[in-house]
Amino acid sequence: MKTGSENKDRGSALPAARDKLLFTPGPLTTSLSVKQAMLHDAGSWHFEFNARVKWVREKILEIAGLSGESGWETIPLQGSGTFGVEAVFATCVPPTGKVAVLANGAYGERMVLMLQHLKINHLVLHTSESVPNDPAALDQALAADQSLTHVAAVHCETTTGLLNPIREIGEVVKRHGRSYIVDAMSSFAAIPIDFTAAGIDYLISSPNKCLEGVPGFSFVICRRNSLLACHGFARSLSLNLLDQLKGFEKNGQFRYTPPTHPILAFERALQEFDQEGGVTGRGARYRRNHETLATGMKRLGFRPYLAPAVQSCIITSFYYPDDPNFSFDVFYRKLSDRGFILYPGKISQANTFRIGSIGRIFPSDIEALVQAIGSVLEEMGVKMP
Amino acid sequence: MKTGSENKDRGSALPAARDKLLFTPGPLTTSLSVKQAMLHDAGSWHFEFNARVKWVREKILEIAGLSGESGWETIPLQGSGTFGVEAVFATCVPPTGKVAVLANGAYGERMVLMLQHLKINHLVLHTSESVPNDPAALDQALAADQSLTHVAAVHCETTTGLLNPIREIGEVVKRHGRSYIVDAMSSFAAIPIDFTAAGIDYLISSPNKCLEGVPGFSFVICRRNSLLACHGFARSLSLNLLDQLKGFEKNGQFRYTPPTHPILAFERALQEFDQEGGVTGRGARYRRNHETLATGMKRLGFRPYLAPAVQSCIITSFYYPDDPNFSFDVFYRKLSDRGFILYPGKISQANTFRIGSIGRIFPSDIEALVQAIGSVLEEMGVKMP
Repeated sequence: MKTGSENKDRGSALPAARDKLLFTPGPLTTSLSVKQAMLHDAGSWHFEFNARVKWVREKILEIAGLSGESGWETIPLQGSGTFGVEAVFATCVPPTGKVAVLANGAYGERMVLMLQHLKINHLVLHTSESVPNDPAALDQALAADQSLTHVAAVHCETTTGLLNPIREIGEVVKRHGRSYIVDAMSSFAAIPIDFTAAGIDYLISSPNKCLEGVPGFSFVICRRNSLLACHGFARSLSLNLLDQLKGFEKNGQFRYTPPTHPILAFERALQEFDQEGGVTGRGARYRRNHETLATGMKRLGFRPYLAPAVQSCIITSFYYPDDPNFSFDVFYRKLSDRGFILYPGKISQANTFRIGSIGRIFPSDIEALVQAIGSVLEEMGVKMP
Repeated sequence: MKTGSENKDRGSALPAARDKLLFTPGPLTTSLSVKQAMLHDAGSWHFEFNARVKWVREKILEIAGLSGESGWETIPLQGSGTFGVEAVFATCVPPTGKVAVLANGAYGERMVLMLQHLKINHLVLHTSESVPNDPAALDQALAADQSLTHVAAVHCETTTGLLNPIREIGEVVKRHGRSYIVDAMSSFAAIPIDFTAAGIDYLISSPNKCLEGVPGFSFVICRRNSLLACHGFARSLSLNLLDQLKGFEKNGQFRYTPPTHPILAFERALQEFDQEGGVTGRGARYRRNHETLATGMKRLGFRPYLAPAVQSCIITSFYYPDDPNFSFDVFYRKLSDRGFILYPGKISQANTFRIGSIGRIFPSDIEALVQAIGSVLEEMGVKMP
């Protein structure tokens, strides 16, 4: 494992040792071959690069289970996942539109912030951070407020690791004839999503989550007709999804400079995703990772924040140990020194930290992490129940 | 050189041969060591990564000649350069503001599109694509319209390769007490810019132009106090530059997932920039590249679009040969087969193509390109004057 001081050796470019393992929900640990795909420079207007972008766009639809159906598009957009989610709101909600946001964590709240910035009318339906979105409350809200045009939900709330019932929500949305936006950033490609049954119009995800690419862009999977109907609504040029689609259709190019290297990495990551057996194989490994983690952390005496019924296999929140000797900063640094990077908590209602199960990590890595956590607690003199 | 068919071998990750050379204004040909810096995964919330982001932000100010002066900030933002320019408008122009845009090419026109999307009042001062921005016309416009709060200009218009007089424009802007925004995407770090003399408030540039990094983000250099005065104006969450700065100041982190690998590449690119002698050394090589190109293309009988007095060393537009045997598509593909990627024209008033002089290319590469162009013309039966 690399230590902090070795990392400061900026002159050395080839990996002398293994990087620290990232138990985070992205950016994450990727395979060396995915990173090696970035050892090439590609011209972003060149036909060879465009052919690869086309392949990637089609491959995403195949993974979504939509390649047999017509009328769907994948639109990659520069920037992080947040840029993709905001682009959907900025492009697709008409000036008189109003969005119902189902919020039970930081990513739902972030949607609210986007709508505030974009000056789009909205209504927030909160549940507590440990409680899934409530389809019945949405049903009532949509019945009561005919001005609501769109509903937005987060599939896996990585704030906690909670999985929201996007299909049940979608059934309510469709019954009321509204448009449905799903942030599936950290779930897509590991947790199956039935687009038709859930009635999804727009789904946003990222290459550097369950598809194990590197960050630099997001992508939106959407119904072509829904998007085409949004002409003239866009509140931002860079975030204009409809123009982005038109750009691809005009000449196969991104309108503005794409992150060429992350796209080459993504192409490779999608091939490795196939090799692992697609959504089924990838999801199975993540579930094994999560089970190894849950079992190991329970053995150490840690308490998970969520009830098992709503816990995803993507990321898990654990309460801090109830011992004055515990300091998260010390705990984090000691684990970093051993080559393991955890994720701080983001829950407003409790002191927690998080451990991700996604990326190029395996049950054996999780076991090594749990063992390291045990030694660190001992070193810190933290007593567990 | 790789051929198109070899490039399709998606299984092979290590570069078997040299990539095609990119004579484009970014993404460009970068050094292998810059690309190798991306062979690592970094946690975007991890203190080691944050320290590297801090170093990069400070290094940019040093390159800008501002590290001795207080009150300046570098703010990297996810997305392409266009996202950075739009972020300045979206964040910094007050609701009652009005922007004068100096336009003589596609990038000036793109600013106008941004302002239209953002519903910001604006005035466009056009000159022809071969004529620099006119400071006298701006002087009159600012005197006539007191509601103009900001002036925006493009330093090197890569549409043509023309260099605009940003210092003279800035003197006019300051005399009238307005704010000044400069798009220096393709000039920063190769063509010296005196921020104080030009009275620049916001300058936007990119890691994958003269600094020879890879694409994935842009950065804005700005006066801290100018930005702090923009509280509450932001029209987009993702493009909110002020919140982006506050994020760095709060915990050293990007607010949203950054393109970690392109940032590691940029760190390396900045070290190589120093090794070449900074702005002086980098600019000297680009000028040699440009001179080699201008001489060689003249020898072949090509006519440049711009007069030498307004031509930058960054990118050069050439008229198509005046021979019916010439087809740009065929010309482009034949050069691509030989390992050279050119750039199509973007000029509305003439049929041209472009050749960039920037990136990890040297006069010997330009000579090889010119020779290849000569053979291709012969093969195509194109007669030159």
